[in-house]
Amino acid sequence: MAVVSDTGMRSLDEPAVMHSLRGMTYMEIEVFGPREDLHSGLWGGPTHNPALALVEILGKLYNPDNTIAVPGFYDDVVPLTEAERAMIAKTDLSEEQFKQATGVPAIWGDKNYTIRERISARPTLDINGLWGGWAGPGPKTIVPAKAGCKISSRLVANQDPNKIYELIKDYVASITPPTVSVEVRLLTTGMPALMPFDLPVMQAAARAYASGWGAEPVFTRGGGSIPIVSDIADIMGIPVVLMGYGLESDGLHSPNEHWGLELYKRGIATAIAYMEELAALPR
Amino acid sequence: MAVVSDTGMRSLDEPAVMHSLRGMTYMEIEVFGPREDLHSGLWGGPTHNPALALVEILGKLYNPDNTIAVPGFYDDVVPLTEAERAMIAKTDLSEEQFKQATGVPAIWGDKNYTIRERISARPTLDINGLWGGWAGPGPKTIVPAKAGCKISSRLVANQDPNKIYELIKDYVASITPPTVSVEVRLLTTGMPALMPFDLPVMQAAARAYASGWGAEPVFTRGGGSIPIVSDIADIMGIPVVLMGYGLESDGLHSPNEHWGLELYKRGIATAIAYMEELAALPR
Repeated sequence: MAVVSDTGMRSLDEPAVMHSLRGMTYMEIEVFGPREDLHSGLWGGPTHNPALALVEILGKLYNPDNTIAVPGFYDDVVPLTEAERAMIAKTDLSEEQFKQATGVPAIWGDKNYTIRERISARPTLDINGLWGGWAGPGPKTIVPAKAGCKISSRLVANQDPNKIYELIKDYVASITPPTVSVEVRLLTTGMPALMPFDLPVMQAAARAYASGWGAEPVFTRGGGSIPIVSDIADIMGIPVVLMGYGLESDGLHSPNEHWGLELYKRGIATAIAYMEELAALPR
Repeated sequence: MAVVSDTGMRSLDEPAVMHSLRGMTYMEIEVFGPREDLHSGLWGGPTHNPALALVEILGKLYNPDNTIAVPGFYDDVVPLTEAERAMIAKTDLSEEQFKQATGVPAIWGDKNYTIRERISARPTLDINGLWGGWAGPGPKTIVPAKAGCKISSRLVANQDPNKIYELIKDYVASITPPTVSVEVRLLTTGMPALMPFDLPVMQAAARAYASGWGAEPVFTRGGGSIPIVSDIADIMGIPVVLMGYGLESDGLHSPNEHWGLELYKRGIATAIAYMEELAALPR
């Protein structure tokens, strides 16, 4: 097995072993209509506005219950077990906490899953950017020649980023009307990763935290992506245990990033304890 | 009555008296979600993406038959008479001509009206611009804090631009979900204008072209806007006759704008003939 130490915990007393990361498919969609921007007075009416066509296409990516409408999108998602849901519930966020952290006026998403499940254990499809026509100050009375967007999916095991791209591309083609043309371009992909937390090496990590750190860890799912984790797991065919010794408040990748000595000491003790736990596992 | 000479004709042998101009309501819509752009991995799922919310709102502005879904939008539209439709048919465009002129792959719009009617005698609602999130090269994995658009309606008689703004604003408010907030801002307005072509001063203009220009004119509707026309008509309470002596190919407002001497000569003759026709009208 392999250990990657690139994750963290909410507070010193709540150590965490991350057993899942989301993957990624990132793409651009561009819709083309007239040859060039048109005078909306002289040509508006019989022209399918590409910005409207884009809007109509994007609106069909979601169902009214906020699930993703792309056929086959969820087919490969590994369902959550009861044990996994119980584990995720240990770090759930209340609506109030989520609203405070983000500033959104109300919670959105698939009501069949808790907030923490939606962040970490369920796939998403987000519009990351939109453009088209005139976005400067004041009015400009045109029908734009084209409009586009960036969209991306955060993926969970066992979704394949390239397959998801193909599904979205085919679906977009199938709902594009003959009044415009469309291009879907793949920008980047990353594989999701999921290690069952009942694996012996995972349970050994939990015992190592209990003795080395001094507190029982929770098994968490990260909403972000560390693409090399799934590369190690897939190419080497071994489980990857994500034992990070940082705090979420350490200012990762930011100015004044810091790491307390206490974390350093407890991390050493936990790593030693993990060696002992691994050695004691049945061969 | 008043004469405004700011319009044109398709060719030297097809003089035109324009008896209608479209008005305008131009506005911006902006949708707000989280306080700032969010990391889509850490927060994507329970957050209603403002770009998606904008798309959903814009998608509801139209019905599936390409008519405008804003309640009351068409209430004040003066219906076309059979005589008006017959007149418009004289300058209709074929699908092929429209496609060639604009480069669109197919015609769109309300199938109950011809192409020329859609351009000039029916109101529109166009997205003139879209923005939100990341529109530069490559991927950026955010949930944008906000997204916006510019939209405008070309209006026909007797639609009131301020009333149309209020209708759109109220409708957008009514379809905005509690997961985002929205602002609709009015940028500019212009009144539509419509003069019946069976008015004696209109028919006199037609006779003036026949004798002064040397060809019977068609009565046309312009898709664009000359806001002062409705101001003159409304404030002074008189009909405005749009007798333009230019060609559509004169390059209006463009480099190398030009105007042929023949048009100048025929225009003089037509204007003189119009004075005589007006003098001969019964008081």
